[in-house]
Amino acid sequence: MERVDLAEKLGSFTETWSPRIVGELNGQHVKVVKVEGEFLWHHHDEEDELFLVLEGRLRIEFRDQAPISLEKDQFLIVPRGVEHKPVAEPKACVLLMEPASTRNTGNVSSNRTVEDPKRI
Amino acid sequence: MERVDLAEKLGSFTETWSPRIVGELNGQHVKVVKVEGEFLWHHHDEEDELFLVLEGRLRIEFRDQAPISLEKDQFLIVPRGVEHKPVAEPKACVLLMEPASTRNTGNVSSNRTVEDPKRI
Repeated sequence: MERVDLAEKLGSFTETWSPRIVGELNGQHVKVVKVEGEFLWHHHDEEDELFLVLEGRLRIEFRDQAPISLEKDQFLIVPRGVEHKPVAEPKACVLLMEPASTRNTGNVSSNRTVEDPKRI
Repeated sequence: MERVDLAEKLGSFTETWSPRIVGELNGQHVKVVKVEGEFLWHHHDEEDELFLVLEGRLRIEFRDQAPISLEKDQFLIVPRGVEHKPVAEPKACVLLMEPASTRNTGNVSSNRTVEDPKRI
């Protein structure tokens, strides 16, 4: 067992839109990610995804409803199947909780896809 | 979908050692709990449990190793089967991530057992 300090983990890398695994429990991953600007539209067929903002501001856009903006210590759970596009305003650090099977770009393959996130 | 503000949730109740459900995803619950002083020794047979400190300081004691203290924005995952005793120093607000099946006192039944946590 090991204490995880979120600020320390966030201080250990600079790359954006590349989630790092910082914990695993019950088949779920806890990840941190630095984000800047827009990501791409995607959904996850089988995975609900939690976004908890640690720093900055994150807007999540949807096809059929108004976007939801999150600030520090606010979270949103996006259910499986719901298409979404995260947009940092202009930057944010985010904690993710999702099944270990989750791919960052969901159903979309792109040059932003990270198939095998690093553990830090 | 609904934005969850952790400070707002924590401001909505005062009871200690009584987790409130604030989110559900992939069969897991996200809970918040206010803690003060010592809890009881227990373990969870089938559930790994994440403790993320939101305010204050929480020490988690173990039978066979040194305790681990957590401050704001630090978390610890206690694997299933590991006996532990949370102790707030002297108070803390904590976010929990654990399977929906998790009972707060694990294998122990006591007057501190909460069988059916409230959703807030």
